[in-house]
Amino acid sequence: MSGMKRATEKNLMVFSGRAHPSLAEEVADQLGTGLVPTSAYEFANSEIYVRFEESVRGCDAFVIQSHTAPINEWIMEHLIMVDALKRASAKRITVVLPFYGYARQDKKHRGREPISARLMADLFKTAGADRLITVDLHADQIQGYFDGPVDHLMALPLLTQYVKEKYGDQQLTVVSPDAGRIKVAERWAAKLGGSPLAFIHKTRDVNRPNESVANRVVGEVEGRMCVLVDDMIDTGGTIVKAADALMADGAAGVVIAATHPILSDPAVDRLKNCQATEVIVTNTLPIPEDHLFDKLTCLSIAPLISRAIREVFEDGSVTSLFDGHA
Amino acid sequence: MSGMKRATEKNLMVFSGRAHPSLAEEVADQLGTGLVPTSAYEFANSEIYVRFEESVRGCDAFVIQSHTAPINEWIMEHLIMVDALKRASAKRITVVLPFYGYARQDKKHRGREPISARLMADLFKTAGADRLITVDLHADQIQGYFDGPVDHLMALPLLTQYVKEKYGDQQLTVVSPDAGRIKVAERWAAKLGGSPLAFIHKTRDVNRPNESVANRVVGEVEGRMCVLVDDMIDTGGTIVKAADALMADGAAGVVIAATHPILSDPAVDRLKNCQATEVIVTNTLPIPEDHLFDKLTCLSIAPLISRAIREVFEDGSVTSLFDGHA
Amino acid sequence: MSGMKRATEKNLMVFSGRAHPSLAEEVADQLGTGLVPTSAYEFANSEIYVRFEESVRGCDAFVIQSHTAPINEWIMEHLIMVDALKRASAKRITVVLPFYGYARQDKKHRGREPISARLMADLFKTAGADRLITVDLHADQIQGYFDGPVDHLMALPLLTQYVKEKYGDQQLTVVSPDAGRIKVAERWAAKLGGSPLAFIHKTRDVNRPNESVANRVVGEVEGRMCVLVDDMIDTGGTIVKAADALMADGAAGVVIAATHPILSDPAVDRLKNCQATEVIVTNTLPIPEDHLFDKLTCLSIAPLISRAIREVFEDGSVTSLFDGHA
Amino acid sequence: MSGMKRATEKNLMVFSGRAHPSLAEEVADQLGTGLVPTSAYEFANSEIYVRFEESVRGCDAFVIQSHTAPINEWIMEHLIMVDALKRASAKRITVVLPFYGYARQDKKHRGREPISARLMADLFKTAGADRLITVDLHADQIQGYFDGPVDHLMALPLLTQYVKEKYGDQQLTVVSPDAGRIKVAERWAAKLGGSPLAFIHKTRDVNRPNESVANRVVGEVEGRMCVLVDDMIDTGGTIVKAADALMADGAAGVVIAATHPILSDPAVDRLKNCQATEVIVTNTLPIPEDHLFDKLTCLSIAPLISRAIREVFEDGSVTSLFDGHA
Amino acid sequence: MSGMKRATEKNLMVFSGRAHPSLAEEVADQLGTGLVPTSAYEFANSEIYVRFEESVRGCDAFVIQSHTAPINEWIMEHLIMVDALKRASAKRITVVLPFYGYARQDKKHRGREPISARLMADLFKTAGADRLITVDLHADQIQGYFDGPVDHLMALPLLTQYVKEKYGDQQLTVVSPDAGRIKVAERWAAKLGGSPLAFIHKTRDVNRPNESVANRVVGEVEGRMCVLVDDMIDTGGTIVKAADALMADGAAGVVIAATHPILSDPAVDRLKNCQATEVIVTNTLPIPEDHLFDKLTCLSIAPLISRAIREVFEDGSVTSLFDGHA
Amino acid sequence: MSGMKRATEKNLMVFSGRAHPSLAEEVADQLGTGLVPTSAYEFANSEIYVRFEESVRGCDAFVIQSHTAPINEWIMEHLIMVDALKRASAKRITVVLPFYGYARQDKKHRGREPISARLMADLFKTAGADRLITVDLHADQIQGYFDGPVDHLMALPLLTQYVKEKYGDQQLTVVSPDAGRIKVAERWAAKLGGSPLAFIHKTRDVNRPNESVANRVVGEVEGRMCVLVDDMIDTGGTIVKAADALMADGAAGVVIAATHPILSDPAVDRLKNCQATEVIVTNTLPIPEDHLFDKLTCLSIAPLISRAIREVFEDGSVTSLFDGHA
Repeated sequence: MSGMKRATEKNLMVFSGRAHPSLAEEVADQLGTGLVPTSAYEFANSEIYVRFEESVRGCDAFVIQSHTAPINEWIMEHLIMVDALKRASAKRITVVLPFYGYARQDKKHRGREPISARLMADLFKTAGADRLITVDLHADQIQGYFDGPVDHLMALPLLTQYVKEKYGDQQLTVVSPDAGRIKVAERWAAKLGGSPLAFIHKTRDVNRPNESVANRVVGEVEGRMCVLVDDMIDTGGTIVKAADALMADGAAGVVIAATHPILSDPAVDRLKNCQATEVIVTNTLPIPEDHLFDKLTCLSIAPLISRAIREVFEDGSVTSLFDGHA
Repeated sequence: MSGMKRATEKNLMVFSGRAHPSLAEEVADQLGTGLVPTSAYEFANSEIYVRFEESVRGCDAFVIQSHTAPINEWIMEHLIMVDALKRASAKRITVVLPFYGYARQDKKHRGREPISARLMADLFKTAGADRLITVDLHADQIQGYFDGPVDHLMALPLLTQYVKEKYGDQQLTVVSPDAGRIKVAERWAAKLGGSPLAFIHKTRDVNRPNESVANRVVGEVEGRMCVLVDDMIDTGGTIVKAADALMADGAAGVVIAATHPILSDPAVDRLKNCQATEVIVTNTLPIPEDHLFDKLTCLSIAPLISRAIREVFEDGSVTSLFDGHA
Repeated sequence: MSGMKRATEKNLMVFSGRAHPSLAEEVADQLGTGLVPTSAYEFANSEIYVRFEESVRGCDAFVIQSHTAPINEWIMEHLIMVDALKRASAKRITVVLPFYGYARQDKKHRGREPISARLMADLFKTAGADRLITVDLHADQIQGYFDGPVDHLMALPLLTQYVKEKYGDQQLTVVSPDAGRIKVAERWAAKLGGSPLAFIHKTRDVNRPNESVANRVVGEVEGRMCVLVDDMIDTGGTIVKAADALMADGAAGVVIAATHPILSDPAVDRLKNCQATEVIVTNTLPIPEDHLFDKLTCLSIAPLISRAIREVFEDGSVTSLFDGHA
Repeated sequence: MSGMKRATEKNLMVFSGRAHPSLAEEVADQLGTGLVPTSAYEFANSEIYVRFEESVRGCDAFVIQSHTAPINEWIMEHLIMVDALKRASAKRITVVLPFYGYARQDKKHRGREPISARLMADLFKTAGADRLITVDLHADQIQGYFDGPVDHLMALPLLTQYVKEKYGDQQLTVVSPDAGRIKVAERWAAKLGGSPLAFIHKTRDVNRPNESVANRVVGEVEGRMCVLVDDMIDTGGTIVKAADALMADGAAGVVIAATHPILSDPAVDRLKNCQATEVIVTNTLPIPEDHLFDKLTCLSIAPLISRAIREVFEDGSVTSLFDGHA
Repeated sequence: MSGMKRATEKNLMVFSGRAHPSLAEEVADQLGTGLVPTSAYEFANSEIYVRFEESVRGCDAFVIQSHTAPINEWIMEHLIMVDALKRASAKRITVVLPFYGYARQDKKHRGREPISARLMADLFKTAGADRLITVDLHADQIQGYFDGPVDHLMALPLLTQYVKEKYGDQQLTVVSPDAGRIKVAERWAAKLGGSPLAFIHKTRDVNRPNESVANRVVGEVEGRMCVLVDDMIDTGGTIVKAADALMADGAAGVVIAATHPILSDPAVDRLKNCQATEVIVTNTLPIPEDHLFDKLTCLSIAPLISRAIREVFEDGSVTSLFDGHA
Repeated sequence: MSGMKRATEKNLMVFSGRAHPSLAEEVADQLGTGLVPTSAYEFANSEIYVRFEESVRGCDAFVIQSHTAPINEWIMEHLIMVDALKRASAKRITVVLPFYGYARQDKKHRGREPISARLMADLFKTAGADRLITVDLHADQIQGYFDGPVDHLMALPLLTQYVKEKYGDQQLTVVSPDAGRIKVAERWAAKLGGSPLAFIHKTRDVNRPNESVANRVVGEVEGRMCVLVDDMIDTGGTIVKAADALMADGAAGVVIAATHPILSDPAVDRLKNCQATEVIVTNTLPIPEDHLFDKLTCLSIAPLISRAIREVFEDGSVTSLFDGHA
């Protein structure tokens, strides 16, 4: 027999783009490995250059980048990192998206719009991604946009655990800030042991989905502590108006909880000044120092991501991390 | 110069599978053309055979099949028709799905489930489909599952027009039978001129999504005529329980409206015997003679589909058919 | 150096659809492993639901389904199982088709027909299949329809061994029931030590390939024991008429041998009542209790399939299983 | 409305490689157009260079090359022509293969063999071919190897017409030179009005399929004029031995008919000296001057190909050219 | 015969991203059509939104975007526009890149680098591009990165025409600023009627290709007017040092000519203050008002692009626009 | 838990086509393994047949073929070998191209030409190649033509080492035979410790790139030992004329160095009789016995290739083999 045999090893390596390095470092620390040293910078005309400073041949690569603003910059860096890994013979490439950019453009609201969330999935596939890990997609269906395995992690247990500990002794109502997120609110209500539900009925201008128009509370909130939940807080307009509407309807208090702290201007000002007493988020996106404020609580998503990476690397089950939901 | 020039013509041809021929005939009639004669039958071991009885070379093909039970049979026939068209040199193949099969399996509810709605899109692409036309997808995101143009038609104007004419003089509340369909209810409310909204808060067993568990009305329904809306009626359990809950909460009356009349057993019995006074559907799916009952109203979807096909064939805008929504 | 190393293991897992579980169980037993527990059922509208009850991450999956009637149901289940495995991160997916559905539609007999055998190969590829294992394809060329490795197993040694032991002392002639299967008969003749050959010259109606028209024996059969061989028995019409023609031409006796017992109605009646004294098949397809009859002999194909799976898993040579033929 | 409209024209252009220009010229003449002037030659190291001397932008291209020896040279030229057409913006590229190279390697006879006939289909697809036109494939299943439309033309009517006119008054038997070609012989027999059939039973060494081993006539040939039919004549060994066997069994005479005259050495010598009185072929492959001999009759395939091209260009039906068979 | 025939029309539509609208407007004007009205803006978190305000169904789309800084923003907008066109049923999508972003990253200089120029080609293909039109690629080989037709236009005739008219009476030497661009200089020399050539021999740090290290003039420049040519001017460091080296070696004067005016900081200052007397560029990239300076001459590339679009639309030959070079 | 675990091994196997077996044997020897026994020959009509004589299931395959004349023959054999490996379940297939055929056709010099270098990359991908190893590509950009990892090895250290040892004590000038290769000459100059550079300015006929027209030395060569460098020597016309031009300009001597010895006629005669005193090449291509001549020195490339294969197999870094350049 011809040939030369050798036992096979696999080698986990964690890579980070420049968008949110502290999260990636936390994840790598928890895995007991460092981030792979990487050169990345812009050329004078803003083209991005990336190079890894160690051999990545045959590795099981996990490439972490949070899609924060300037989002196109960071997505392109993410794609270029994947291309470089593919051409440098990484054995398997898992793209880790704590926040999946363009997830809100997941359908055509009107004719002649793109479906950018699908486009992103295809761009990563083309660059060389074999699989994705992501957290709390704007719509569960986005999992199906990628042609390959997607591990869809849920921050829900992390957030509800915190709320239960701090507010569990009060009469809670879970509130969705609009009709589209009531499914999320239902999961919260179940996790909190069967709280009642309410939602804010409003309309949006289809051209400018960041701005809401009218607000009416549907459901019972009077005298109850309202937990206003969403997957993300962008400019905060919707959620702050919802908090106001709840207080106007006689709520005993409002706390806001969301996985992704996009916090685009003027979210911080709005949240600081609104009637909610606490705003609870995770660090799937970086929060600049000057965006921190007293009533903001930020829980780390790193333990969830590092456990998922370890399970993926070791071929364990990630389902247990999904809280029975994905 | 070498070569031989010739003006280009395009030729619209409409094809129908065996699942719901009367709808296809109605569509073809409205287009002023007949269905292409087609042989289709099963061999003894249940394999399907299809052959077109006319040349289809260079045609602009529209292949209509409703995904009704036995659904796998009809989907496979649909795929085989597309394969035969591709190999017979059709120039462009548009798959028309009045009801898109497996649309409800559009995400992983738990680990190790398929995403069958995406699989269907890929199977049609593989067989040779260039584009899709479909009606009222279970989730708008499914548009993004197909790698190509999807014309997503809406039955909303047809249904709301009927309701407005018949019930417009009453005090209407639009009700969603569960949290996941409130977005649809919002569109209804807007179309009906700003009716109030309500929904039924219930939980489902993730393993058996057809069976609901508990029902609580969220929103004001007392003394009002409730329009209970959904995209489809399968076994009817959810919607009938919702109607009961509404009446129990003091509603003045209930009418049910849905695009897709799946009407699996025991839907017909449930609907016949429930407290709703009218059940309004379209004919995206065939309704067998013995499933008809007095309070069932069936509006024809054929005019919407035939107008869409004509616009696609003539490169007109289909957006106007979408009622500002896709 | 960054990174975390770990030795690689592979893990064989065997899955079965619902079409023919007893074969899959026999295969799994011979491999010394159980079938992976799997939930599979139909929703009310006949859509299929599948979920695996154990983690399959990183496994080397072998998914067995016999394409028996209702064939489109079982093929769709097979495809959905592959999709679920792909999305659940199986490392490699081998589709095992003891009987490859639609194999007879492997060419266009006339214009505007599909080539469904190629379509099936493409559908499995799209769903996520990396490789196929199958038994006695209707035409060897079908191996080339799949874009990847195909292990094409042969039941010939199993069947000829049985015939040799039981009829080896008689004067045998191998007979093909039509012109298209003479190559198979030639392999039989070689295996039986150089028996003479004959075939039945008949014509078929291209539209209804199950029905033959005229039969004339070509070759010497008088006074000889005829072994009438085919790859499959569907309605049995062809083969039973062939048996009659052989007896009419003075054959001493007829035994029928075929790999795939499709046995569509009225095959069982025809075979029971025909002049052949024994009908030998394998269990690549399930035979319902009430289809069994005295002169039917069913040899198990499980040892061949389990040996092939083991060799594929262990990177051994499967060629030895092919009897020098594939 | 923005935009600038213009009526669409299509422009047929015919291209020829260097393998068999006289056939391409005949085809182009019959279409009433010339061949597109093309530069093609080898560089010093035998790399092929191709360039078209006229604009081909937007044309409907038909690229003719006969796969004769040196076959790899001509296939590569064919592929390079397709690549150049794709990059020069031809609108549609139809590859015309009067003889499809590597068609005999359409399955794995043993393990670790290629399936070169499928590989060829994939190479042409990759280069840019949209569709194929070919004549008398070695196996009908090869149609399914190409992922797109294949027009499979049949020389049968041409050949049987000639035989009927010349030998129709004699008692004919159609003979297949081996078991694998009896289906072809059956079509001949049907075309000739129901002649009897016979075949030669022989075995081949799987490693060297050109050499046969033993020959036994199965069927009645005594005193009859035998028409020995095949799809191709390569070295002629098989067919000449078959002719000898027929004469030895008392045939009144033998004529040989085949579509593809490969005529590799020593076919010409064998055929000249064999007992057949006429050898009838077509010009799908070029026959060098010094390979012509008295009893060789060569019928032109050009009318069949030019009619097919015209029908494809004009979106007519090609099925009528297939004689009810593809 | 079934079906409904209609003559085919094609409809040219020109689209522009927001990077360099004045060039797109100039192109559209010269074609006698306007730009298609398009909404494009950023959401709060910097995600891009695009929608076309007119039906684009069936159109022949040309989508113009100059890849200027912030380059990732504009490339992503370009990709999203293509996705929206694909999903809105444009018949053919031609991506027009007056300057092709990331073209300089066309190979791996060291291990573990990306090949971003290939990645860009693949991203546009994935988004839905059928073909590209571009101007003066950094390397001709990049044409081969796109899997489809690429029309590669040359600004050379435009630039040399200008230089000939203004400097044709002087003794010219064409100079390449480094070894890699001498091929371009050779083309210039040929166009200028056979001028002598020179080049600057220098080394770059592979990590920071924008900074050169040492400069030595190779070739005769003393007493001659030097035309220093390149494909682009980025920070201007290389070309300005080259101009200095030429003057130091006794050149009579220096003019600089390049197709693409990237003009990243501090290019404008360097060019203003260098010893070259004129800097000639085209408007493939936008030049902000405050980057204009006295000795800068900007020739419009719009006529070349609009002629190419017209030829592509009308299936004419673009080769004549390539000046015998592509 | 279901399943059966097993440690994973990998198995390196080296395969060789028939073009240059001695190089492959040398490589296999250095790896300490033999070549896998392979049957390969032509059928009578020049179709190639290949079969491996050992099981290759699961192996890590390296398939070596030098693309020498008759180049289309050997490329096709290479493709067929890859197809056979894919279908025989090789785990990973690395195509080793010591000389990459058609590399010079890496762009369209004029309209309506192919880009054959890209076509070759796509053909190998289609056949089943996962990755490439090659030596000194004609243009670095060709790496980007393959959609996967490419290890691009450099013969530069081997060649410069030899030149330094033998000629290091003389005053060297590195000379490029034309403008397009100066980048290569720059690398040589850097490796030789900063030698001066020169090049020959000439023009080629675009139709016949093998023939140069005029030659003018640019740079200082008088009294210096010139090292004339190129990537390949085909007919030798260009390089021999360059050597003559250098001597005519007063060079002290000329040695020629190139990686790939194509040596098409009349290269050997030209080189034998030219004024260069030594011609240094490697054995990436076979040199027939009768092409050897006294002043020809051939260095073996096998150690470089075998080290690269070992690193690829063992997931080591190949970058160190690239001399800081790829």
